[in-house]
Amino acid sequence: MVIIMNLIYVTISNEEESLYIGEKIVKKRLTACANIISDMKSIYWWEGNLEKDNEPILILKTIDENLGAVMAKIKEIHSYDNLCII
Amino acid sequence: MVIIMNLIYVTISNEEESLYIGEKIVKKRLTACANIISDMKSIYWWEGNLEKDNEPILILKTIDENLGAVMAKIKEIHSYDNLCII
Amino acid sequence: MVIIMNLIYVTISNEEESLYIGEKIVKKRLTACANIISDMKSIYWWEGNLEKDNEPILILKTIDENLGAVMAKIKEIHSYDNLCII
Repeated sequence: MVIIMNLIYVTISNEEESLYIGEKIVKKRLTACANIISDMKSIYWWEGNLEKDNEPILILKTIDENLGAVMAKIKEIHSYDNLCII
Repeated sequence: MVIIMNLIYVTISNEEESLYIGEKIVKKRLTACANIISDMKSIYWWEGNLEKDNEPILILKTIDENLGAVMAKIKEIHSYDNLCII
Repeated sequence: MVIIMNLIYVTISNEEESLYIGEKIVKKRLTACANIISDMKSIYWWEGNLEKDNEPILILKTIDENLGAVMAKIKEIHSYDNLCII
């Protein structure tokens, strides 16, 4: 059986928050599962400075029907004001 | 030279199996290479319970022509009955 | 605000080079950020032999407008002659 899935990629402040967000979304059955890659180094501009930080990646797989609800839920509970969700 | 590649993303039970599947597929020259991210935490429903587990990710890159054969090979040798291949 | 982003995935020889390339590209403001997954095992053919190696993954997110410049910059400074950029 082939189902068309969207793969969502979002960086999170730390592992605890990535587990929190992942669990919330899977619990609500908006995605079948959540995958968390904890060891990731990020390089980015912040307030005029080039920063390097450890940011876990949260990867979610969901069907078209749930995509809007998953994005809304991430924005609602994520600690960042400026989010990059791919 | 630009070649259109498909990126295949599949979670595996453990590192040993991810190396086994990756090697089998690269040996058959169905993909140029296999990439394995071992340290990944998965959250998912299993038989009514919310489970947390370590599941390596196997990433494969292949041309359209080989996509069917790669998917068939993964299904054939993967230990899971229910597979999520993106 | 929704912006259409391209996610670029390229494997690098080691962590030092992945940080070097990531920083160069973010400094030139060609991408908002660079994400580096250091712990990745690669299986590939090299000069007739099946090789296994550790290769960090560099993930870059950029808008259509910058895609060409990012690809050109990676090719310019990457140590590999044969690159696989997805």
